[in-house]
Amino acid sequence: MSKANDYQILIEKSLKNYLPHGNFTEQTLIDSMEYSLMCGGKRIRPLLTLLFCELCGEDVNKALPYACAVEMIHTYSLIHDDMPCMDDDDYRRGKPSNHKVYGEDIATLSGDALQSLAFEIMLCDEAVEKISAQRAVKAAYTLAKYSGALGMVGGQVIDIEHENKNADIEILSEMDEKKTAALIKASCEMGCIIGGADKVRTEAATQYAHSIGIAFQIVDDILDVTATSEQLGKPVGSDSENNKSTYVSLLGIEKCRELVAKLTDDAINALSVFDADTKALSDLAIGLANRSN
Amino acid sequence: MSKANDYQILIEKSLKNYLPHGNFTEQTLIDSMEYSLMCGGKRIRPLLTLLFCELCGEDVNKALPYACAVEMIHTYSLIHDDMPCMDDDDYRRGKPSNHKVYGEDIATLSGDALQSLAFEIMLCDEAVEKISAQRAVKAAYTLAKYSGALGMVGGQVIDIEHENKNADIEILSEMDEKKTAALIKASCEMGCIIGGADKVRTEAATQYAHSIGIAFQIVDDILDVTATSEQLGKPVGSDSENNKSTYVSLLGIEKCRELVAKLTDDAINALSVFDADTKALSDLAIGLANRSN
Repeated sequence: MSKANDYQILIEKSLKNYLPHGNFTEQTLIDSMEYSLMCGGKRIRPLLTLLFCELCGEDVNKALPYACAVEMIHTYSLIHDDMPCMDDDDYRRGKPSNHKVYGEDIATLSGDALQSLAFEIMLCDEAVEKISAQRAVKAAYTLAKYSGALGMVGGQVIDIEHENKNADIEILSEMDEKKTAALIKASCEMGCIIGGADKVRTEAATQYAHSIGIAFQIVDDILDVTATSEQLGKPVGSDSENNKSTYVSLLGIEKCRELVAKLTDDAINALSVFDADTKALSDLAIGLANRSN
Repeated sequence: MSKANDYQILIEKSLKNYLPHGNFTEQTLIDSMEYSLMCGGKRIRPLLTLLFCELCGEDVNKALPYACAVEMIHTYSLIHDDMPCMDDDDYRRGKPSNHKVYGEDIATLSGDALQSLAFEIMLCDEAVEKISAQRAVKAAYTLAKYSGALGMVGGQVIDIEHENKNADIEILSEMDEKKTAALIKASCEMGCIIGGADKVRTEAATQYAHSIGIAFQIVDDILDVTATSEQLGKPVGSDSENNKSTYVSLLGIEKCRELVAKLTDDAINALSVFDADTKALSDLAIGLANRSN
């Protein structure tokens, strides 16, 4: 089995461990958080944190709380994104969305609590003692910045405000940079921070993250017109139904495929500043470009 | 003018400064965050952070990011709490709720972004350099813990799940401890952490926070049956309309008033371990007990 597989198993186990364990009056909330967090995502973001930490020569166990934190932020954003007042999606990864199972009130609150939990696990004694308070602060700050108003959440707002409008490529780029690439940047940069990388290597990680992040979004746009709903575990064609501008609607599928190939090359080339073996990260970039769901 | 007034002016100015400034594509989001954050709350939580920091002999300016962060968490919880899928309140502090002005999608996201911003301002270089990474980590962890699944958000879930049921006094106590007192504890403890307080003083702050927090909630319950909607800036009688158990419905108004007086005494007595002048905090406890809105 590949290293990425081993790490994904480690991530699954850690995510589950980081949820509150006990029998609480607010057990429904914990169940709802667990339902979405343990729903079998691809775990790309936490994997990136671990792989960059390892690439910097540091023990990946030190990066685990930060890896799990970014997955919690990603999960909370999906729960809120699926709500009727947002994308109104009844299914996520082939299963009913959080609010379809727990109701909109609990779904709102479990998203909120997952965000708090992300910061709690990064800043608790156990996580901080393994690295240093300086690195813990820097990593948690990085995640807060990239997930907030001028990062992931900002990207979602740009997305909402440009539905049913003809967004141009500049707006689309800014939206995807914030909505998708920002959290991937946080994942990669946090791995570098925990690993004690210098400025050159951290910037290379940012460049890698930007390239795979934008490629990831373009592949999403392509799959929305080429994949089956069974492959995606959610309805397809929603972008064109919503009259949303996408890379595909603006550039066409062929040009999009070329762009994904170029971005994937850029990502792999950015890794050349690292001395250690970058194969796992190169493979990940290629795998994301060629994915069918 | 009192010290509390001076500090409240400082808090207003800082909150405004901590919002992103510029002309952003996602400007609607920033406007929505500002709308609720600058909506003229009582600023009790940040004031507590500053007063405890000062009581520990430390410069209050060092506690300002942490004071503002707790107000951002409080504000995000109000925005989400007012949503149709939660309490469905059209008004907050006499003005239309966030979602009535910006829509439910933007309201959801501005709550999310305010939570991120809270952690961003506590963990940024400027805030951390004034204290130390150790204290920054401890303060931000404290806020994450008290605001999350087993704190404020957990309390909101207990509240939701006991609507239209006859909650007993144990459930009511746990709910109020989490929903209301938890964030007040975070405020007071963070002031102590920034101020470098020892364990005895920090525990005294927690005790003070618990007492004024529960008193605060009981006063809320009393005002819901005795105040006018003009005084509160929101509809009254909503608890009994929703068949919610409250301290008033379980114990009666007179017993509730006695309890508020006792809790206020407890809060003031807890402050006796501090050497410095605790008048501002005693006055605050008394003011909250006697408030009419």
